[in-house]
Amino acid sequence: MSKARRPIPMPNLTVSPLTPSVYAVQWIDGACVLLDQTRLPREEVYLRCTSYLQVVDAITTLAVRGAPAIGIAGAFAVALAARESLSLPKADSTEKLKFFEKAVASIMQARPTAVNLAWAVKRVVSEVGSLDEDTVETLVKHAKNIHEEDILANQKMASFGASLLELNSKVITYCNTGDLATGGVGTAFGVLREAHRQKKISVVYPCETRPVMQGSRLTSWECHRNQIPFSVICDNMAGSVMGNEKIAAVFVGADRIAANGDAANKVGTYSLAIVAKYHRVPFYVVAPSSTFDLKTASGRQILIEQRSPREIAGALGVNQPNYPLGDINPAFDVTPADLITAIVCDKGIIAPNAIAEWF
Amino acid sequence: MSKARRPIPMPNLTVSPLTPSVYAVQWIDGACVLLDQTRLPREEVYLRCTSYLQVVDAITTLAVRGAPAIGIAGAFAVALAARESLSLPKADSTEKLKFFEKAVASIMQARPTAVNLAWAVKRVVSEVGSLDEDTVETLVKHAKNIHEEDILANQKMASFGASLLELNSKVITYCNTGDLATGGVGTAFGVLREAHRQKKISVVYPCETRPVMQGSRLTSWECHRNQIPFSVICDNMAGSVMGNEKIAAVFVGADRIAANGDAANKVGTYSLAIVAKYHRVPFYVVAPSSTFDLKTASGRQILIEQRSPREIAGALGVNQPNYPLGDINPAFDVTPADLITAIVCDKGIIAPNAIAEWF
Repeated sequence: MSKARRPIPMPNLTVSPLTPSVYAVQWIDGACVLLDQTRLPREEVYLRCTSYLQVVDAITTLAVRGAPAIGIAGAFAVALAARESLSLPKADSTEKLKFFEKAVASIMQARPTAVNLAWAVKRVVSEVGSLDEDTVETLVKHAKNIHEEDILANQKMASFGASLLELNSKVITYCNTGDLATGGVGTAFGVLREAHRQKKISVVYPCETRPVMQGSRLTSWECHRNQIPFSVICDNMAGSVMGNEKIAAVFVGADRIAANGDAANKVGTYSLAIVAKYHRVPFYVVAPSSTFDLKTASGRQILIEQRSPREIAGALGVNQPNYPLGDINPAFDVTPADLITAIVCDKGIIAPNAIAEWF
Repeated sequence: MSKARRPIPMPNLTVSPLTPSVYAVQWIDGACVLLDQTRLPREEVYLRCTSYLQVVDAITTLAVRGAPAIGIAGAFAVALAARESLSLPKADSTEKLKFFEKAVASIMQARPTAVNLAWAVKRVVSEVGSLDEDTVETLVKHAKNIHEEDILANQKMASFGASLLELNSKVITYCNTGDLATGGVGTAFGVLREAHRQKKISVVYPCETRPVMQGSRLTSWECHRNQIPFSVICDNMAGSVMGNEKIAAVFVGADRIAANGDAANKVGTYSLAIVAKYHRVPFYVVAPSSTFDLKTASGRQILIEQRSPREIAGALGVNQPNYPLGDINPAFDVTPADLITAIVCDKGIIAPNAIAEWF
């Protein structure tokens, strides 16, 4: 595998002109509006959240998911929490502040692994000194800034990442990392959209991504909308596909990247990286600056969210057994830096062992 | 990985006393009776096949599956075909023979990858010279012999395989390889049952095995029946589990083993073997003599069955998209010999590169 060991400066690339074809998170008329991703691809239903708890619930149940998208949703949820604090009946300013602080903590803890959520919440909160009438508007403005920055970061990553592919490439991707997972055109999927625009994609193989099926439900939907040729494969077919076809690269997103280049992402990413290395297929992680967590030294320190094992049994539909199927369901795993060919960031294309030189 | 490069003779092992707790295939009152595995674990329903075409249909739709089990079912189907040939109205002996030969061909071709089916059909057919009144009984007798030999082969493999484990081991297995997949206690799963009897199993992690879910539907059911502690994982979690826990070994079955030790098995086995090698976890293939195909030089020559991509979309249940999810669905893949620590066979424990010395 050719591994970029030094930062590769890419100053002359044009930023991708692509724009999102759908918004996972929006602020409309004083509400945080979320596309309910649990009902895709069958139904396109929007949730209008006017309370921070509705957003927390949407994050927990995966109605909104994807590290950058839950960061933006979390930032808007802080604005909702401020509004709810200020309108508490018969509460003094101390009680209002207490309510707000408790709300902020619960937003940050809605999901533990993606660093973008805590990063975005802390950032908007740091912009307000005290709770007063202007606070809500200030918070909304800063949340919108995060959203706009994410759109631009996506466009830059799309260009940087597309530069890594030749014409008519076959690529594998994992989970969902497009419009639905971010504020803009996506991380890994943004790269594929831009590469497709440049005629560099002959087919995308999205892995279905058990247990929640983000690949077969969401990435297939985004491929279909954007007319990108695709064929969903079961996660266990990646080895077969790499063994039988010339795969140019694997592109995945990330939920948290440690200082040493280890990357936490949707469970299964680690196995896919091992299989790619065995086949000498380049393995690229695509993530904006907000996903880098330099306070975390290595992947071993990243908290992995455990979700209900019922998510696994759910796929059996009416054929579920009358005994428990199991007791573990890690939502993420950590891919060590030495399995990652390069990290495509909005700053450029970074060697996983050279992160410190960029941040 | 410690790799057995020479045959390991194990003459002093006691054959496992375990017996099947359920029969996937039986001959009862002139019919081939199959447990309908598509309805497990929810319902235990038996199909009574009195025509060879019913058996062919059951093999094609996976009502009966597992390389040794479809071999036995195929052998009984030949007996049904002979009976149907002989009772053809207004047919002369040439027409009856023609019907029989056509039936035999269609039984053999019901599924292409597992060699056991063709092997068993050829073996029973070779026992009969012409079609006459005794033919049906002769065929049934020889099919029953194959079944009985498989039961004994399973018991031997169970003992050989269990000798590879220490007390309280954690193991990973793939697809379903137990009572349901064979005539007896199973191949890889028979090893786990015998090891459990010897207190060598603390937990089994069955991979769910997309797209047909043989692990979560069938292996979980067999673990539950046999009171073996288990926790089903999604196929993509094997890397996470091997990275976080001490896994003693992976045990899988096989559908066809080439002369060079390459083994075709359920799709995903190859990826699992790569992930096991990366973690230095021993990877054992467990298969009876009838699975070895010395006429096939290497795995590259093994025909891989392609099944309908609808099997993949099926797991989305009511949430299926209104566009096609994809166009490939290989049912098997080939694990190269150098990823296999050893093959556990009824003859003993064989190094994958030493098959010629044993057959």
